[in-house]
Amino acid sequence: MAKRSYPMAKVYGLLEPGPVVLVTTAGKGRPNIMTMSWHTMMEFEPPLVGCVISNRSHTFGILKATKECVINIPTVDLAEKVVGCGNTTGQDTDKFKTFVLTPAAASCVRAPLIAECYANLECRVVDTRLAATYNFFILEVLKAWIDPSRKHPKTIHHRGKGTFMVAGETIKLPSRMK
Amino acid sequence: MAKRSYPMAKVYGLLEPGPVVLVTTAGKGRPNIMTMSWHTMMEFEPPLVGCVISNRSHTFGILKATKECVINIPTVDLAEKVVGCGNTTGQDTDKFKTFVLTPAAASCVRAPLIAECYANLECRVVDTRLAATYNFFILEVLKAWIDPSRKHPKTIHHRGKGTFMVAGETIKLPSRMK
Repeated sequence: MAKRSYPMAKVYGLLEPGPVVLVTTAGKGRPNIMTMSWHTMMEFEPPLVGCVISNRSHTFGILKATKECVINIPTVDLAEKVVGCGNTTGQDTDKFKTFVLTPAAASCVRAPLIAECYANLECRVVDTRLAATYNFFILEVLKAWIDPSRKHPKTIHHRGKGTFMVAGETIKLPSRMK
Repeated sequence: MAKRSYPMAKVYGLLEPGPVVLVTTAGKGRPNIMTMSWHTMMEFEPPLVGCVISNRSHTFGILKATKECVINIPTVDLAEKVVGCGNTTGQDTDKFKTFVLTPAAASCVRAPLIAECYANLECRVVDTRLAATYNFFILEVLKAWIDPSRKHPKTIHHRGKGTFMVAGETIKLPSRMK
């Protein structure tokens, strides 16, 4: 894998646009993959990410037990696999095998990176105060990886029911915003 | 304003793709506008939205006091105004006047809708448990409005430092996901 370490200070720019992501976890059995769109940045550095992981999902129990996951950011070429992971459960499906995705070893967590995704964020759970009420977990990004050859990654953004907006052109305006 | 009421059950599809939004509030003085990108859906119905509102912003104090706001969703034609609102503070700037935006009366809250935005979500604060630690507020959407003439709204998605991804094409895949 030709991925490079990515600075913590720049991580927010990967998630702030709102892409669908694939969350990987590793429990006692095989590793799992969950499709997720309900996430937000909560702090720049160290990067904190808030996300909703349904308590009906296989990932919920593993995340509560292991306190670790990886957020993998896919591009449009992976759209069918993203939908496939969203329509199946790790309870009866080996998603890496079924959707032909490649697990790669992370450096800080046991959950695997998805090699095919252009960016991967290794995370640990740091706050579960809202997990019981809203299935809301706060993650700290410990380590980030990016494929430096992907200059304009066409991320996909879920509008609901399998309809996705594909990332279009980039514009830059003078701004003092971070 | 030719806006129509929008079903609560469909609201998630407006925010889930991750657009930059403009949050309006109404305190004792003039109404204010804040540019925001750190938000996530937290529940389908009633729609709950989690968002980070910096405690250094003028909006933070008004939101804590009034418990009401409107989430307005702009499109790329408003990009300069969006950046303008992000680079100024309501403490010394009348943003509606400065950026030539039109306030319109909401139906459930005192905060105004921004007429130029293609969708508007009237909200009340329902949970502030994480406000002290992360400036994180949970909002319930009470009423939603949409401009039915805007079939493919080109929302903008912040990558950081004034760089935005503009919504591109739409794709649809067979899916059982909501």
